[in-house]
Amino acid sequence: MAASRLLIIKIGGNIIDDPGQLQAFLGKFAALPEKKILVHGGGKIATRLAADLGIEAKMVEGRRITDEAMLRVVTMVYAGLTNKQVVASLQALECNAIGLSGADGNSIMAERRPVGSIDYGFVGDLNENAVNADAIDSMLEAGLVPVFSAITHDGNGQLLNTNADTIASALAVGMAGLYSTSLVYCFEKKGVLRDIHDAQSLIRKIATNDFANLKATGVISDGMIPKLHNAFEAIDKGVSEVYIGHADDLPLLSQRAFGTRLVK
Amino acid sequence: MAASRLLIIKIGGNIIDDPGQLQAFLGKFAALPEKKILVHGGGKIATRLAADLGIEAKMVEGRRITDEAMLRVVTMVYAGLTNKQVVASLQALECNAIGLSGADGNSIMAERRPVGSIDYGFVGDLNENAVNADAIDSMLEAGLVPVFSAITHDGNGQLLNTNADTIASALAVGMAGLYSTSLVYCFEKKGVLRDIHDAQSLIRKIATNDFANLKATGVISDGMIPKLHNAFEAIDKGVSEVYIGHADDLPLLSQRAFGTRLVK
Repeated sequence: MAASRLLIIKIGGNIIDDPGQLQAFLGKFAALPEKKILVHGGGKIATRLAADLGIEAKMVEGRRITDEAMLRVVTMVYAGLTNKQVVASLQALECNAIGLSGADGNSIMAERRPVGSIDYGFVGDLNENAVNADAIDSMLEAGLVPVFSAITHDGNGQLLNTNADTIASALAVGMAGLYSTSLVYCFEKKGVLRDIHDAQSLIRKIATNDFANLKATGVISDGMIPKLHNAFEAIDKGVSEVYIGHADDLPLLSQRAFGTRLVK
Repeated sequence: MAASRLLIIKIGGNIIDDPGQLQAFLGKFAALPEKKILVHGGGKIATRLAADLGIEAKMVEGRRITDEAMLRVVTMVYAGLTNKQVVASLQALECNAIGLSGADGNSIMAERRPVGSIDYGFVGDLNENAVNADAIDSMLEAGLVPVFSAITHDGNGQLLNTNADTIASALAVGMAGLYSTSLVYCFEKKGVLRDIHDAQSLIRKIATNDFANLKATGVISDGMIPKLHNAFEAIDKGVSEVYIGHADDLPLLSQRAFGTRLVK
């Protein structure tokens, strides 16, 4: 018997920051009939709260550092305000959401990023065994819809700020032993476009073999390359398919017609 | 077969605010062999954050009001920072905690307090059916230890600030159909004392009938009367026993020798 489908959908700050867009997205998300997990990034609320508190965003060599004060801010905003507002909104849509950080139910355990030339502070990286698939599956089996904020823990009591794209990818890889997982990135375009100014030039499907060719011919732009590289890496690790597309088109997921579909 | 025991333990701001006390408490909590639920209040972090953000604590007729700005603050602190720090600390102690607001898994649904002579703002009251016992039980059955912050929802997308003592009591009442529930309030005294200045004067046990007598003879002081009144109300609604005592003595719970024990 083929494994049943599990959608792992990641939304970014552009949706979180706009209450109208967020409500529209949540309505479409709630209506998806498949088993599903939502992963949300942070948005500008954390940046604004830090500024209001006089906490400076620390940068070293152009990279963001999560010091202790900033970790408190992102924990409050991501795991508190944003996560609970999203969960309450989904509950109002009859979607039985449960908000989680990686610490909750020990669902995602990270390792603090090793200090090399830069000390990123309280930032978590995810290794192969980061995702507690059984714990998450028992929630899915109970009819719950996990909603993950981008906060994890190290198992020794330390919370860690963790990239939301990475969490979504780790969840799709980690759950691939139990489900046929579809990893879905919502962003501000229809998908991967042949011509960035023409929404009609959407590339519907890219297989691993096509990727090298599209890169070589310069069809895929610089900014998109690392995104696609990570997507194909997830596919290599067992994810069935990765989608990149616009949140408005979410209902097309069930027919596998959402944005650009990446496959083996 | 007698129902198995479930402990519902509430800690207040005095413990939350003191990292050393909190760690000591969590160590003792994690070690309790019974099925258990933790409910935590807020502490001074929310008050301090509000002050740092220039949000004034609104009072009407001496009562605290939760306006929209304050609701955001308590959601960030209670459901975000405090809840996730407690959960991460419990995970480090091998206690498989899961942090919850009432919105998560629709575990506790409140009603916004009706506007009478005072509009309390976004404050939730709990009615008889507030607690989703089956949802919480499936977490307990999965070996999880729910950790509730004092934030609930109304089912229509609105988060609500809710008294932590009330949440603990509602949980003990709501779970009483499935478990023999013990409701435990940790505070800064050994329990109910005959002489408030003498820790040796601890009253070990108070039955419903004793309560009227102790009130009449003035043994129980004014401040303690509403606490005990609410405790006996919970017992009337099916809770097996209520304890009031000092967090340090938590290990005595298993022998039913913790603080003052209130029974039918």
